Amino acid sequence: MKTLKEGTLTGVSLGPGDPELMSRKAWSALHSQAIWCYPVKKKSGVSYALDIVSRAQLSPPEKSFALIFPMTHDSSILSKHWIAAAQQVLTHLQQGQDVVFLVEGDASTYSTFAHLARTISHLNDQVDIQIIPGISAYHAAAAKTKVSLADTDDTIAILPAGYGIETINSMLKDFDTLVLLKVKPLLDQIIDFLEQKELLDQAIFIEKVGSPQEHIVHDLLSLRHQKVNYLSLILLRNPNRQRGTVIRGCRKKL
Amino acid sequence: MKTLKEGTLTGVSLGPGDPELMSRKAWSALHSQAIWCYPVKKKSGVSYALDIVSRAQLSPPEKSFALIFPMTHDSSILSKHWIAAAQQVLTHLQQGQDVVFLVEGDASTYSTFAHLARTISHLNDQVDIQIIPGISAYHAAAAKTKVSLADTDDTIAILPAGYGIETINSMLKDFDTLVLLKVKPLLDQIIDFLEQKELLDQAIFIEKVGSPQEHIVHDLLSLRHQKVNYLSLILLRNPNRQRGTVIRGCRKKL
Repeated sequence: MKTLKEGTLTGVSLGPGDPELMSRKAWSALHSQAIWCYPVKKKSGVSYALDIVSRAQLSPPEKSFALIFPMTHDSSILSKHWIAAAQQVLTHLQQGQDVVFLVEGDASTYSTFAHLARTISHLNDQVDIQIIPGISAYHAAAAKTKVSLADTDDTIAILPAGYGIETINSMLKDFDTLVLLKVKPLLDQIIDFLEQKELLDQAIFIEKVGSPQEHIVHDLLSLRHQKVNYLSLILLRNPNRQRGTVIRGCRKKL
Repeated sequence: MKTLKEGTLTGVSLGPGDPELMSRKAWSALHSQAIWCYPVKKKSGVSYALDIVSRAQLSPPEKSFALIFPMTHDSSILSKHWIAAAQQVLTHLQQGQDVVFLVEGDASTYSTFAHLARTISHLNDQVDIQIIPGISAYHAAAAKTKVSLADTDDTIAILPAGYGIETINSMLKDFDTLVLLKVKPLLDQIIDFLEQKELLDQAIFIEKVGSPQEHIVHDLLSLRHQKVNYLSLILLRNPNRQRGTVIRGCRKKL
Protein backbone atom coordinates (compact mmCIF):
# COMPACT_ATOMS: atom_id res chain seq x y z
CA MET A 1 0.00 0.00 0.00
CA LYS A 2 1.37 3.39 -1.00
CA THR A 3 1.38 5.69 1.99
CA LEU A 4 3.91 8.33 1.02
CA LYS A 5 3.49 10.99 -1.62
CA GLU A 6 6.33 10.56 -4.07
CA GLY A 7 8.85 13.36 -4.37
CA THR A 8 9.24 15.59 -7.40
CA LEU A 9 12.30 15.56 -9.63
CA THR A 10 13.28 19.01 -10.90
CA GLY A 11 15.89 19.69 -13.55
CA VAL A 12 17.41 22.93 -12.30
CA SER A 13 19.23 24.87 -15.01
CA LEU A 14 22.10 26.84 -13.54
CA GLY A 15 23.00 28.91 -16.59
CA PRO A 16 26.36 29.06 -18.33
CA GLY A 17 28.77 29.40 -15.43
CA ASP A 18 28.36 32.70 -13.59
CA PRO A 19 26.26 31.91 -10.49
CA GLU A 20 24.70 35.38 -10.79
CA LEU A 21 23.10 34.21 -14.04
CA MET A 22 21.06 31.55 -12.28
CA SER A 23 17.35 32.39 -12.27
CA ARG A 24 15.61 33.34 -9.04
CA LYS A 25 13.56 30.17 -9.44
CA ALA A 26 16.69 28.00 -9.64
CA TRP A 27 18.05 29.78 -6.58
CA SER A 28 14.86 29.00 -4.65
CA ALA A 29 15.01 25.35 -5.72
CA LEU A 30 18.54 25.13 -4.32
CA HIS A 31 17.25 26.45 -1.00
CA SER A 32 14.29 24.09 -0.82
CA GLN A 33 14.12 20.82 1.10
CA ALA A 34 15.23 18.88 -1.98
CA ILE A 35 18.45 16.92 -2.06
CA TRP A 36 20.78 17.46 -5.00
CA CYS A 37 22.21 15.19 -7.61
CA TYR A 38 24.65 16.20 -10.31
CA PRO A 39 26.36 14.59 -13.29
CA VAL A 40 29.98 13.45 -13.31
CA LYS A 41 31.84 11.67 -16.10
CA LYS A 42 33.43 9.09 -13.82
CA LYS A 43 33.52 8.03 -10.18
CA SER A 44 35.10 10.80 -8.08
CA GLY A 45 35.02 13.05 -11.15
CA VAL A 46 34.32 16.77 -10.85
CA SER A 47 30.93 18.20 -11.76
CA TYR A 48 30.86 21.50 -13.66
CA ALA A 49 27.26 21.99 -12.52
CA LEU A 50 28.24 21.56 -8.87
CA ASP A 51 31.15 23.92 -9.43
CA ILE A 52 28.72 26.68 -10.48
CA VAL A 53 26.71 26.44 -7.26
CA SER A 54 29.89 26.09 -5.19
CA ARG A 55 31.00 29.44 -6.56
CA ALA A 56 27.74 30.85 -5.14
CA GLN A 57 28.96 29.60 -1.72
CA LEU A 58 26.28 26.91 -1.59
CA SER A 59 26.99 23.38 -0.38
CA PRO A 60 25.05 20.23 -1.21
CA PRO A 61 22.51 19.22 1.44
CA GLU A 62 23.07 15.95 3.26
CA LYS A 63 22.33 12.82 1.17
CA SER A 64 23.14 14.63 -2.10
CA PHE A 65 24.92 12.42 -4.62
CA ALA A 66 26.74 12.30 -7.95
CA LEU A 67 25.37 10.38 -10.94
CA ILE A 68 27.82 8.88 -13.39
CA PHE A 69 27.25 9.54 -17.09
CA PRO A 70 30.36 8.27 -18.88
CA MET A 71 31.63 9.88 -22.09
CA THR A 72 31.32 6.96 -24.46
CA HIS A 73 29.69 6.05 -27.75
CA ASP A 74 28.82 2.58 -26.51
CA SER A 75 25.06 2.47 -26.16
CA SER A 76 25.02 -0.59 -23.88
CA ILE A 77 27.38 1.09 -21.40
CA LEU A 78 25.32 4.29 -21.58
CA SER A 79 22.00 2.51 -21.03
CA LYS A 80 23.42 0.69 -18.04
CA HIS A 81 24.48 3.99 -16.43
CA TRP A 82 21.22 5.76 -17.27
CA ILE A 83 19.21 2.98 -15.66
CA ALA A 84 21.46 2.91 -12.59
CA ALA A 85 21.16 6.70 -12.24
CA ALA A 86 17.40 6.62 -12.71
CA GLN A 87 17.01 3.90 -10.08
CA GLN A 88 19.15 5.84 -7.62
CA VAL A 89 16.97 8.92 -8.06
CA LEU A 90 13.75 6.87 -7.93
CA THR A 91 14.74 5.39 -4.57
CA HIS A 92 14.77 8.88 -3.06
CA LEU A 93 11.60 10.02 -4.83
CA GLN A 94 9.75 6.95 -3.59
CA GLN A 95 10.70 7.86 -0.04
CA GLY A 96 8.84 11.13 -0.54
CA GLN A 97 12.06 13.08 -0.99
CA ASP A 98 12.20 15.88 -3.57
CA VAL A 99 15.30 15.75 -5.75
CA VAL A 100 16.88 18.46 -7.88
CA PHE A 101 19.23 17.58 -10.70
CA LEU A 102 21.83 20.31 -11.31
CA VAL A 103 22.30 21.20 -14.96
CA GLU A 104 24.80 23.63 -16.46
CA GLY A 105 23.30 25.88 -19.13
CA ASP A 106 19.72 25.00 -20.01
CA ALA A 107 18.15 21.64 -19.14
CA SER A 108 16.41 21.28 -22.52
CA THR A 109 19.47 21.99 -24.64
CA TYR A 110 22.18 19.34 -25.07
CA SER A 111 21.67 18.22 -21.49
CA THR A 112 22.10 14.98 -19.59
CA PHE A 113 18.82 15.75 -17.87
CA ALA A 114 16.81 14.73 -20.93
CA HIS A 115 18.31 11.21 -20.75
CA LEU A 116 17.71 10.94 -17.02
CA ALA A 117 14.12 12.18 -17.22
CA ARG A 118 13.34 9.85 -20.13
CA THR A 119 14.75 6.83 -18.33
CA ILE A 120 12.92 7.61 -15.09
CA SER A 121 9.64 8.02 -16.97
CA HIS A 122 10.18 4.64 -18.63
CA LEU A 123 10.70 3.01 -15.24
CA ASN A 124 7.82 4.85 -13.57
CA ASP A 125 5.50 7.03 -15.61
CA GLN A 126 3.85 8.48 -12.49
CA VAL A 127 6.88 10.47 -11.40
CA ASP A 128 6.37 14.23 -11.35
CA ILE A 129 9.18 15.84 -13.36
CA GLN A 130 9.63 19.59 -13.62
CA ILE A 131 12.16 21.70 -15.50
CA ILE A 132 13.47 25.16 -14.63
CA PRO A 133 14.93 26.68 -17.80
CA GLY A 134 18.26 28.50 -17.85
CA ILE A 135 20.41 30.88 -19.81
CA SER A 136 22.35 29.00 -22.44
CA ALA A 137 26.05 29.55 -23.07
CA TYR A 138 25.42 31.13 -26.47
CA HIS A 139 23.10 33.77 -25.03
CA ALA A 140 25.66 34.57 -22.34
CA ALA A 141 28.44 34.63 -24.94
CA ALA A 142 26.42 37.05 -27.09
CA ALA A 143 25.81 39.35 -24.13
CA LYS A 144 29.45 39.29 -23.07
CA THR A 145 30.78 40.05 -26.55
CA LYS A 146 27.89 42.38 -27.46
CA VAL A 147 27.11 40.39 -30.57
CA SER A 148 23.45 40.54 -31.55
CA LEU A 149 22.37 36.93 -32.12
CA ALA A 150 19.38 38.05 -34.14
CA ASP A 151 17.91 41.33 -35.35
CA THR A 152 14.37 41.82 -36.64
CA ASP A 153 14.01 39.08 -39.28
CA ASP A 154 17.25 37.19 -38.69
CA THR A 155 17.64 33.44 -38.56
CA ILE A 156 19.85 31.44 -36.16
CA ALA A 157 21.34 27.96 -36.61
CA ILE A 158 22.81 26.10 -33.64
CA LEU A 159 24.84 23.01 -34.46
CA PRO A 160 27.76 20.89 -33.29
CA ALA A 161 30.70 21.79 -35.53
CA GLY A 162 31.27 18.06 -36.07
CA TYR A 163 28.87 18.03 -39.03
CA GLY A 164 31.78 19.50 -40.92
CA ILE A 165 32.74 22.42 -43.10
CA GLU A 166 30.46 21.48 -45.99
CA THR A 167 27.40 21.62 -43.74
CA ILE A 168 28.54 24.88 -42.13
CA ASN A 169 29.09 26.37 -45.57
CA SER A 170 25.67 25.33 -46.81
CA MET A 171 24.05 27.05 -43.80
CA LEU A 172 25.47 30.42 -44.75
CA LYS A 173 22.75 30.54 -47.39
CA ASP A 174 19.84 30.51 -44.94
CA PHE A 175 21.22 31.85 -41.64
CA ASP A 176 22.32 35.24 -40.32
CA THR A 177 23.96 33.74 -37.24
CA LEU A 178 25.64 30.40 -36.76
CA VAL A 179 26.38 29.09 -33.28
CA LEU A 180 29.03 26.40 -33.67
CA LEU A 181 29.33 24.12 -30.65
CA LYS A 182 32.03 21.63 -29.65
CA VAL A 183 34.48 23.31 -32.03
CA LYS A 184 37.58 21.80 -30.43
CA PRO A 185 38.36 18.96 -32.86
CA LEU A 186 37.60 20.98 -36.01
CA LEU A 187 39.00 24.33 -34.98
CA ASP A 188 41.81 24.56 -37.54
CA GLN A 189 39.47 23.58 -40.37
CA ILE A 190 36.93 26.18 -39.24
CA ILE A 191 39.58 28.90 -39.09
CA ASP A 192 40.74 28.03 -42.64
CA PHE A 193 37.15 28.11 -43.85
CA LEU A 194 36.42 31.49 -42.24
CA GLU A 195 39.60 32.93 -43.70
CA GLN A 196 38.67 31.73 -47.16
CA LYS A 197 35.14 33.16 -46.82
CA GLU A 198 36.51 36.47 -45.43
CA LEU A 199 34.41 35.96 -42.32
CA LEU A 200 37.21 35.94 -39.72
CA ASP A 201 36.22 39.38 -38.40
CA GLN A 202 32.62 38.19 -37.98
CA ALA A 203 33.54 35.28 -35.70
CA ILE A 204 34.28 35.17 -31.97
CA PHE A 205 35.56 32.20 -30.02
CA ILE A 206 34.26 31.83 -26.44
CA GLU A 207 35.35 29.22 -23.91
CA LYS A 208 33.65 28.57 -20.56
CA VAL A 209 31.70 31.82 -20.60
CA GLY A 210 30.98 33.30 -17.18
CA SER A 211 33.38 31.00 -15.34
CA PRO A 212 36.73 32.05 -13.85
CA GLN A 213 38.33 30.25 -16.85
CA GLU A 214 36.38 32.33 -19.37
CA HIS A 215 38.43 32.92 -22.51
CA ILE A 216 37.28 35.14 -25.37
CA VAL A 217 39.25 35.39 -28.60
CA HIS A 218 38.44 37.86 -31.38
CA ASP A 219 41.50 37.11 -33.51
CA LEU A 220 40.75 33.53 -34.48
CA LEU A 221 44.00 33.17 -36.40
CA SER A 222 45.79 33.22 -33.05
CA LEU A 223 44.05 29.95 -32.19
CA ARG A 224 45.61 27.95 -35.02
CA HIS A 225 47.16 24.73 -33.70
CA GLN A 226 46.09 25.67 -30.16
CA LYS A 227 44.32 23.32 -27.79
CA VAL A 228 41.02 24.64 -26.49
CA ASN A 229 38.49 23.49 -23.93
CA TYR A 230 35.62 21.16 -24.73
CA LEU A 231 33.14 23.81 -23.49
CA SER A 232 33.87 26.28 -26.26
CA LEU A 233 31.84 27.72 -29.09
CA ILE A 234 32.09 30.11 -32.00
CA LEU A 235 29.53 32.83 -32.72
CA LEU A 236 29.54 33.64 -36.41
CA ARG A 237 27.64 36.54 -37.94
CA ASN A 238 26.92 36.30 -41.63
CA PRO A 239 26.24 39.87 -42.72
CA ASN A 240 26.17 39.31 -46.48
CA ARG A 241 23.50 36.67 -46.60
CA GLN A 242 21.15 36.87 -49.56
CA ARG A 243 17.80 36.98 -47.81
CA GLY A 244 14.80 35.05 -49.03
CA THR A 245 11.44 36.72 -49.33
CA VAL A 246 9.58 37.37 -46.13
CA ILE A 247 5.96 36.60 -46.79
CA ARG A 248 4.05 38.13 -43.93
CA GLY A 249 4.42 38.95 -40.27
CA CYS A 250 7.95 40.21 -40.46
CA ARG A 251 9.21 43.66 -41.09
CA LYS A 252 11.41 44.03 -44.13
CA LYS A 253 15.13 44.37 -43.56
CA LEU A 254 16.04 48.05 -43.50
CA MET B 1 35.48 70.24 -19.04
CA LYS B 2 34.18 66.82 -18.14
CA THR B 3 33.76 66.58 -14.40
CA LEU B 4 31.25 63.77 -13.98
CA LYS B 5 31.84 60.12 -14.66
CA GLU B 6 29.26 59.09 -17.22
CA GLY B 7 26.70 56.51 -16.21
CA THR B 8 26.55 52.98 -17.55
CA LEU B 9 23.73 51.71 -19.73
CA THR B 10 22.79 48.09 -19.01
CA GLY B 11 20.43 46.01 -21.11
CA VAL B 12 18.70 43.94 -18.44
CA SER B 13 17.11 40.78 -19.84
CA LEU B 14 14.04 39.84 -17.83
CA GLY B 15 13.39 36.42 -19.32
CA PRO B 16 10.22 35.26 -21.03
CA GLY B 17 7.52 36.47 -18.65
CA ASP B 18 7.66 34.72 -15.29
CA PRO B 19 9.47 37.13 -12.94
CA GLU B 20 10.93 34.10 -11.15
CA LEU B 21 12.88 33.36 -14.34
CA MET B 22 14.83 36.61 -14.10
CA SER B 23 18.48 36.03 -13.27
CA ARG B 24 19.87 37.03 -9.90
CA LYS B 25 22.04 39.54 -11.76
CA ALA B 26 19.00 41.14 -13.41
CA TRP B 27 17.30 41.27 -10.02
CA SER B 28 20.31 43.07 -8.53
CA ALA B 29 20.37 45.54 -11.42
CA LEU B 30 16.72 46.39 -10.71
CA HIS B 31 17.64 47.11 -7.10
CA SER B 32 20.65 49.27 -7.95
CA GLN B 33 20.72 53.07 -8.09
CA ALA B 34 19.97 52.99 -11.82
CA ILE B 35 16.84 54.51 -13.28
CA TRP B 36 14.80 52.38 -15.68
CA CYS B 37 13.69 52.84 -19.22
CA TYR B 38 11.50 50.45 -21.16
CA PRO B 39 10.13 50.14 -24.68
CA VAL B 40 6.57 50.98 -25.68
CA LYS B 41 5.05 50.90 -29.15
CA LYS B 42 3.31 54.26 -28.81
CA LYS B 43 2.92 57.12 -26.36
CA SER B 44 1.05 55.89 -23.24
CA GLY B 45 1.37 52.33 -24.58
CA VAL B 46 1.92 49.39 -22.24
CA SER B 47 5.34 47.80 -21.90
CA TYR B 48 5.51 44.00 -21.68
CA ALA B 49 8.96 44.31 -20.12
CA LEU B 50 7.64 46.63 -17.40
CA ASP B 51 4.72 44.25 -16.88
CA ILE B 52 7.17 41.45 -16.01
CA VAL B 53 8.85 43.46 -13.26
CA SER B 54 5.51 44.78 -12.03
CA ARG B 55 4.44 41.19 -11.47
CA ALA B 56 7.49 40.87 -9.20
CA GLN B 57 5.98 43.74 -7.16
CA LEU B 58 8.70 46.15 -8.23
CA SER B 59 7.98 49.75 -9.22
CA PRO B 60 10.09 52.00 -11.43
CA PRO B 61 12.38 54.35 -9.51
CA GLU B 62 11.76 58.07 -9.83
CA LYS B 63 12.79 59.59 -13.19
CA SER B 64 12.24 56.27 -15.03
CA PHE B 65 10.78 56.70 -18.50
CA ALA B 66 9.31 54.94 -21.52
CA LEU B 67 11.02 54.97 -24.91
CA ILE B 68 8.86 54.82 -28.01
CA PHE B 69 9.77 52.28 -30.68
CA PRO B 70 6.89 52.27 -33.17
CA MET B 71 5.90 49.14 -35.09
CA THR B 72 6.52 50.31 -38.61
CA HIS B 73 8.47 49.33 -41.72
CA ASP B 74 9.33 52.94 -42.47
CA SER B 75 13.04 53.32 -41.86
CA SER B 76 12.94 57.11 -41.63
CA ILE B 77 10.30 56.99 -38.87
CA LEU B 78 12.28 54.27 -37.08
CA SER B 79 15.56 56.17 -37.27
CA LYS B 80 13.93 59.28 -35.90
CA HIS B 81 12.63 57.37 -32.88
CA TRP B 82 15.90 55.51 -32.28
CA ILE B 83 17.83 58.78 -32.26
CA ALA B 84 15.29 60.44 -29.96
CA ALA B 85 15.44 57.46 -27.58
CA ALA B 86 19.24 57.39 -27.65
CA GLN B 87 19.44 61.11 -26.89
CA GLN B 88 17.00 60.76 -24.01
CA VAL B 89 19.14 57.99 -22.48
CA LEU B 90 22.38 59.88 -23.16
CA THR B 91 21.11 62.91 -21.27
CA HIS B 92 20.82 60.80 -18.13
CA LEU B 93 24.12 58.99 -18.67
CA GLN B 94 25.94 62.29 -19.12
CA GLN B 95 24.61 63.43 -15.75
CA GLY B 96 26.41 60.45 -14.21
CA GLN B 97 23.19 58.49 -13.84
CA ASP B 98 23.23 54.73 -14.49
CA VAL B 99 20.37 53.57 -16.68
CA VAL B 100 18.93 50.09 -17.15
CA PHE B 101 16.89 49.24 -20.20
CA LEU B 102 14.29 46.54 -19.48
CA VAL B 103 14.16 43.79 -22.08
CA GLU B 104 11.73 40.88 -22.27
CA GLY B 105 13.44 37.59 -23.12
CA ASP B 106 17.12 37.94 -23.98
CA ALA B 107 18.68 41.28 -24.93
CA SER B 108 20.76 39.80 -27.78
CA THR B 109 17.90 37.96 -29.45
CA TYR B 110 15.32 39.87 -31.52
CA SER B 111 15.51 42.75 -29.10
CA THR B 112 14.98 46.49 -29.31
CA PHE B 113 18.06 46.89 -27.13
CA ALA B 114 20.39 46.14 -30.04
CA HIS B 115 18.97 49.13 -31.94
CA LEU B 116 19.21 51.41 -28.93
CA ALA B 117 22.77 50.37 -28.07
CA ARG B 118 23.91 50.77 -31.69
CA THR B 119 22.40 54.24 -31.96
CA ILE B 120 23.89 55.40 -28.66
CA SER B 121 27.33 54.12 -29.68
CA HIS B 122 27.04 56.04 -32.95
CA LEU B 123 26.25 59.24 -31.06
CA ASN B 124 28.90 58.69 -28.38
CA ASP B 125 31.34 55.81 -28.69
CA GLN B 126 32.64 56.34 -25.14
CA VAL B 127 29.44 55.17 -23.43
CA ASP B 128 29.85 52.05 -21.30
CA ILE B 129 27.20 49.55 -22.38
CA GLN B 130 26.67 46.24 -20.60
CA ILE B 131 24.27 43.38 -21.27
CA ILE B 132 22.80 40.92 -18.79
CA PRO B 133 21.61 37.87 -20.76
CA GLY B 134 18.26 36.23 -20.14
CA ILE B 135 16.24 33.09 -20.68
CA SER B 136 14.62 33.18 -24.10
CA ALA B 137 10.99 32.29 -24.70
CA TYR B 138 11.92 29.11 -26.60
CA HIS B 139 14.00 27.76 -23.73
CA ALA B 140 11.16 28.48 -21.31
CA ALA B 141 8.65 26.92 -23.72
CA ALA B 142 10.79 23.78 -23.99
CA ALA B 143 11.04 23.48 -20.21
CA LYS B 144 7.31 24.01 -19.71
CA THR B 145 6.31 21.44 -22.34
CA LYS B 146 9.21 19.07 -21.55
CA VAL B 147 10.37 19.06 -25.14
CA SER B 148 14.09 18.54 -25.53
CA LEU B 149 15.31 21.27 -27.85
CA ALA B 150 18.46 19.32 -28.63
CA ASP B 151 19.96 15.95 -27.72
CA THR B 152 23.58 14.95 -28.18
CA ASP B 153 24.28 15.82 -31.84
CA ASP B 154 21.06 17.62 -32.69
CA THR B 155 20.77 20.84 -34.66
CA ILE B 156 18.40 23.75 -33.96
CA ALA B 157 17.06 26.39 -36.36
CA ILE B 158 15.35 29.52 -35.06
CA LEU B 159 13.51 31.61 -37.61
CA PRO B 160 10.56 33.92 -38.08
CA ALA B 161 7.82 31.88 -39.75
CA GLY B 162 7.41 34.69 -42.28
CA TYR B 163 10.09 33.16 -44.52
CA GLY B 164 7.34 30.82 -45.57
CA ILE B 165 6.51 27.16 -45.92
CA GLU B 166 9.09 26.45 -48.61
CA THR B 167 11.91 27.64 -46.35
CA ILE B 168 10.52 25.75 -43.36
CA ASN B 169 10.26 22.61 -45.47
CA SER B 170 13.84 22.92 -46.72
CA MET B 171 15.10 23.15 -43.12
CA LEU B 172 13.67 19.76 -42.22
CA LYS B 173 16.64 18.31 -44.09
CA ASP B 174 19.29 19.76 -41.78
CA PHE B 175 17.55 20.39 -38.45
CA ASP B 176 16.23 18.24 -35.60
CA THR B 177 14.34 21.11 -34.01
CA LEU B 178 12.72 24.13 -35.59
CA VAL B 179 11.69 27.10 -33.48
CA LEU B 180 9.16 29.07 -35.51
CA LEU B 181 8.64 32.61 -34.27
CA LYS B 182 5.91 35.15 -35.07
CA VAL B 183 3.66 32.39 -36.37
CA LYS B 184 0.47 34.43 -36.16
CA PRO B 185 0.00 35.47 -39.81
CA LEU B 186 1.01 32.08 -41.26
CA LEU B 187 -0.57 29.79 -38.70
CA ASP B 188 -3.12 28.12 -40.99
CA GLN B 189 -0.49 27.47 -43.65
CA ILE B 190 1.87 25.99 -41.06
CA ILE B 191 -0.87 23.70 -39.73
CA ASP B 192 -1.65 22.47 -43.26
CA PHE B 193 2.03 21.85 -43.88
CA LEU B 194 2.51 19.91 -40.62
CA GLU B 195 -0.54 17.81 -41.37
CA GLN B 196 0.75 16.96 -44.81
CA LYS B 197 4.18 16.05 -43.40
CA GLU B 198 2.59 13.99 -40.59
CA LEU B 199 4.38 16.18 -38.05
CA LEU B 200 1.35 17.52 -36.18
CA ASP B 201 2.10 15.40 -33.12
CA GLN B 202 5.67 16.72 -33.05
CA ALA B 203 4.61 20.36 -32.83
CA ILE B 204 3.51 22.46 -29.86
CA PHE B 205 2.13 25.98 -29.95
CA ILE B 206 3.07 28.29 -27.06
CA GLU B 207 1.81 31.82 -26.48
CA LYS B 208 3.22 34.25 -23.88
CA VAL B 209 5.05 31.55 -21.94
CA GLY B 210 5.39 32.20 -18.23
CA SER B 211 2.88 35.04 -18.17
CA PRO B 212 -0.64 34.88 -16.69
CA GLN B 213 -1.87 34.71 -20.33
CA GLU B 214 0.27 31.65 -21.12
CA HIS B 215 -1.50 29.40 -23.61
CA ILE B 216 -0.12 26.01 -24.66
CA VAL B 217 -1.76 23.99 -27.41
CA HIS B 218 -0.76 20.42 -28.31
CA ASP B 219 -3.57 19.80 -30.79
CA LEU B 220 -2.63 22.30 -33.47
CA LEU B 221 -5.67 21.44 -35.60
CA SER B 222 -7.78 23.17 -32.95
CA LEU B 223 -6.04 26.45 -33.83
CA ARG B 224 -7.26 26.53 -37.44
CA HIS B 225 -8.84 29.90 -38.23
CA GLN B 226 -8.15 31.07 -34.67
CA LYS B 227 -6.56 34.39 -33.80
CA VAL B 228 -3.44 34.09 -31.67
CA ASN B 229 -1.13 36.52 -29.91
CA TYR B 230 1.88 38.14 -31.56
CA LEU B 231 4.13 36.66 -28.85
CA SER B 232 3.60 33.06 -29.89
CA LEU B 233 5.87 30.36 -31.26
CA ILE B 234 5.85 26.76 -32.43
CA LEU B 235 8.38 24.18 -31.28
CA LEU B 236 8.71 21.49 -33.93
CA ARG B 237 10.68 18.28 -33.43
CA ASN B 238 11.76 16.49 -36.57
CA PRO B 239 12.44 12.92 -35.47
CA ASN B 240 12.90 11.35 -38.89
CA ARG B 241 15.63 13.57 -40.16
CA GLN B 242 18.26 11.85 -42.28
CA ARG B 243 21.40 12.82 -40.45
CA GLY B 244 24.57 13.86 -42.23
CA THR B 245 27.89 12.39 -41.23
CA VAL B 246 29.40 13.64 -38.02
CA ILE B 247 33.09 14.01 -38.64
CA ARG B 248 34.66 14.36 -35.23
CA GLY B 249 33.92 15.62 -31.77
CA CYS B 250 30.37 14.38 -31.59
CA ARG B 251 29.05 11.11 -30.36
CA LYS B 252 27.15 9.12 -32.92
CA LYS B 253 23.37 9.00 -32.60
CA LEU B 254 22.38 5.88 -30.69
